[in-house]
Amino acid sequence: MVQTPEDMQARFNIDVRIRSEVIRLDAANKKVLVRSQSRGTYEESYDALILSPGAKALRPNIPGIDSERILTLRNIPDTDAIKGLVDQKGVQSAIIIGGGFVGVEMAENLREQGLNVTLVEAAPHILAPFDTDMVVLAEKKLVAHGIRLILNDGVKSFQDLENQVEVTLASNRKLQGDLIILAIGVIPDTGFLKESGLELGPKGHLIVNEHMATNLPHVYAAGDAVEVLDYITKTKTAIPLAGPANKQGRIAADNIAGLNSTYKGTQGTSIIKIFELTAASTGANERTLQRANLPYHVIHIHPVSHASYYPNAYPMTLKLIFGADGRIFGAQGIGRDGVDKRIDVISTVIRLGGTVEDLTELELAYAPPFSSAKDPVNMAGYVAQNVLTGQAHMLVWDDLNKIDEEYTFVDVRTKIEFAKGHVEGAINIPVDDLRQRIQELDPGKLIVVYCEVGLRGYFAERILTQKGYRVLNLTGGYTTYSVQGFDPNQALDDYKKDFNPYPCCADEDIIDPDTQRIKHQ
Amino acid sequence: MVQTPEDMQARFNIDVRIRSEVIRLDAANKKVLVRSQSRGTYEESYDALILSPGAKALRPNIPGIDSERILTLRNIPDTDAIKGLVDQKGVQSAIIIGGGFVGVEMAENLREQGLNVTLVEAAPHILAPFDTDMVVLAEKKLVAHGIRLILNDGVKSFQDLENQVEVTLASNRKLQGDLIILAIGVIPDTGFLKESGLELGPKGHLIVNEHMATNLPHVYAAGDAVEVLDYITKTKTAIPLAGPANKQGRIAADNIAGLNSTYKGTQGTSIIKIFELTAASTGANERTLQRANLPYHVIHIHPVSHASYYPNAYPMTLKLIFGADGRIFGAQGIGRDGVDKRIDVISTVIRLGGTVEDLTELELAYAPPFSSAKDPVNMAGYVAQNVLTGQAHMLVWDDLNKIDEEYTFVDVRTKIEFAKGHVEGAINIPVDDLRQRIQELDPGKLIVVYCEVGLRGYFAERILTQKGYRVLNLTGGYTTYSVQGFDPNQALDDYKKDFNPYPCCADEDIIDPDTQRIKHQ
Repeated sequence: MVQTPEDMQARFNIDVRIRSEVIRLDAANKKVLVRSQSRGTYEESYDALILSPGAKALRPNIPGIDSERILTLRNIPDTDAIKGLVDQKGVQSAIIIGGGFVGVEMAENLREQGLNVTLVEAAPHILAPFDTDMVVLAEKKLVAHGIRLILNDGVKSFQDLENQVEVTLASNRKLQGDLIILAIGVIPDTGFLKESGLELGPKGHLIVNEHMATNLPHVYAAGDAVEVLDYITKTKTAIPLAGPANKQGRIAADNIAGLNSTYKGTQGTSIIKIFELTAASTGANERTLQRANLPYHVIHIHPVSHASYYPNAYPMTLKLIFGADGRIFGAQGIGRDGVDKRIDVISTVIRLGGTVEDLTELELAYAPPFSSAKDPVNMAGYVAQNVLTGQAHMLVWDDLNKIDEEYTFVDVRTKIEFAKGHVEGAINIPVDDLRQRIQELDPGKLIVVYCEVGLRGYFAERILTQKGYRVLNLTGGYTTYSVQGFDPNQALDDYKKDFNPYPCCADEDIIDPDTQRIKHQ
Repeated sequence: MVQTPEDMQARFNIDVRIRSEVIRLDAANKKVLVRSQSRGTYEESYDALILSPGAKALRPNIPGIDSERILTLRNIPDTDAIKGLVDQKGVQSAIIIGGGFVGVEMAENLREQGLNVTLVEAAPHILAPFDTDMVVLAEKKLVAHGIRLILNDGVKSFQDLENQVEVTLASNRKLQGDLIILAIGVIPDTGFLKESGLELGPKGHLIVNEHMATNLPHVYAAGDAVEVLDYITKTKTAIPLAGPANKQGRIAADNIAGLNSTYKGTQGTSIIKIFELTAASTGANERTLQRANLPYHVIHIHPVSHASYYPNAYPMTLKLIFGADGRIFGAQGIGRDGVDKRIDVISTVIRLGGTVEDLTELELAYAPPFSSAKDPVNMAGYVAQNVLTGQAHMLVWDDLNKIDEEYTFVDVRTKIEFAKGHVEGAINIPVDDLRQRIQELDPGKLIVVYCEVGLRGYFAERILTQKGYRVLNLTGGYTTYSVQGFDPNQALDDYKKDFNPYPCCADEDIIDPDTQRIKHQ
């Protein structure tokens, strides 16, 4: 679709052989064995070889998996097959197995096509690059658009019915769908290299050095089939993304052509559109840092995409993870406009080895349609800097139950905000009344404060700290806290037993249009 | 509008005194003299003082300048005054003097209000942070929206007519407008400090060190009234922008509170919306580098905002300026979506002292709605890296006339593109025919190639260089070259003698809707 062999020949003098599969590598003699449609099987020699076989969709040996209605997605013919099934008369429902990027994008696309969509994920949450506290926002968005989301449940077996497939889950729950998309991950497409003498990783990834060279002379590799260095933890990993693959290709070519180019690792910067939402992340998340035994701080902010008085400003949630020395480990953002920009800026700081202090000093482009005078990235830096300098003491909500002393829980929002919903057990002292009412608080007891997003909580903390209190401020405030209990299974039971075709979200009494929060009736 | 003195008192325990003007500083006794509406004139003492008087609109001593119809814009009452005049019956035309950010934003806003708008700029081009080659795109957009743009002409005098003001320009051209906006720049509002002993710059700016401290003890300053270090050239300058002002305020407060925070200079990252366009810049432009005697390279690219097959992708023009060691000096971008993001990313690289190589390695968030697998910032890095490694030799169009030998000018686009318009004197050899027709070119002569945006020109350069030719590739291709001759005065003479009220741009035969290029009939 993008280029033809003829154009590649004319422009680059490159001999592109389509419908030709390399089935064996003989590196000792610098030859490959090619099986081709037009020329049969033949040997071809090389001076240098670049392997970029990519990765293919995982299709495990589950009973019933060979059904014609169970499809995977890698290339354009796969897309055509899916489209072909969707367009068949009577096809109304799809079950997607796997909540990674492909699974979620398929869920959104098929829902937009008017299908009733169920997304099944074996892990507790979808989209593994995101931490739980962030990804719930994406999960709520899927549910708000009428997608049935089943977490913590894998597939036990498939069975063909007349015009449907029945999926039996590990929980023995049974689902029926006209169409199944299997999107549980990819494996490197390197089976043909097993006997080649090439060093392969435990899952079949090609092992390369920083020049993208394999262990065999004159053989290079790039793309989704190679193992890479995690840029943050410096451990070996595999991150199949288009951006890194492109860079690796250029670096392999550079080295073959005699230029000393090096690949320094993959950060895993990634992004996905989920209906109106954008979710993006870069660097390490909490799980990755825990596995790598790297201690970290976490903060959450809820800035708006641009000056709030200028039209179409939307709030976003931005999470920043950083070390005790201020080094940025990772960031995650979910919102509408401008999430991509903020994650790209933080990704750039990470790449250049920058710190929290650098975030505060960035000079980002400000005019009201584009940002605020203090950009969300600056704000994240300020909050993180306050943590590092001891001006602010943050508490993450899931550490609430780890506090081993009696504490006073203070909601410093207005009475109206408090009345709309608050954390159980919290008392309400609006921040603007705090100086007057400070004597209501016991100076001997730990105080935990929170507001809507974290800013007034910080003011309250400062007021109290200066009077000698010990204070913790709940990071991200009630906005982040209140989504943490989200249970899509429960929400869906409450939502509806049956799904309407598009347009979805007609039940305004069930989904709050302001917050996209599903009301448990 | 944002905060009241009462709220500031309750929340921060800060005593805000409105309608109170400091008219004298007595630093020796740590006192200021205040003239207030409610309390008369009185002395107030301080332990630390932060001066942030800002800058006021320049209003030079030009004959007739005191007309009530000549307004400036600094604050909300100024806005109200402008709005009051615009809403008056019979007010149909505005003349804006000065093509800086304020002047251009006023031109756009008043045009959107339906006025006939003329913008007068004394310099050869508007928006000084941009180089000529980039700003022509903004000038064309203004003209395409029916704004009369007069460059290279200043104001000699004003004269009140019955319900209008007549402006006489330096060229003796006379213009009549119902309303005049004077937006020729700002000066620091520091007149009250002249006798204070504070060190002031030649234009009245407050001189501060990296802690935002002035030469007087316990006196700090921040904002539009201070002189700053240019982050790129390390020379003294004044850059009145909201982002830096905010940062300086925090740094002054930090230092007063005993934290050792430093301000490291201003890059001048700025952005403006001009109808559908976004124009943004960061760091030094060519003029600044020429004044600072810093040698530099320039490249231009024309990437799309995101994957071109995904809806609403728009091309942008991105200019990168960098040193022989790869250090990034500055960047300018003009387009629609995603210009802000790319300038913010490059601004971040500049801030962290990054290079062209860093641009190639940035891992930016890619999915088709947001970017391409090779982001425009990566592409700018690749092109710049090719220049630094000698893989590519670029020519800027205004250096064409400095080539002191006979050369062959080759347009490597398709025949169709060539037929639509090309550089005078160029011969057409499409890049895909070049390998076949290479013998048509004299190996002894310098070859200058160009294509539409620069990419095929690069391929042609590589093909020819490998055959021993000496080649230069015109940076930015025909897209950048073809706008350079733009003359708004001429364009407007051709466009219309009289202006229609909104909606503008009705004459499709005059403005090409695809390119916004005005056809000279």
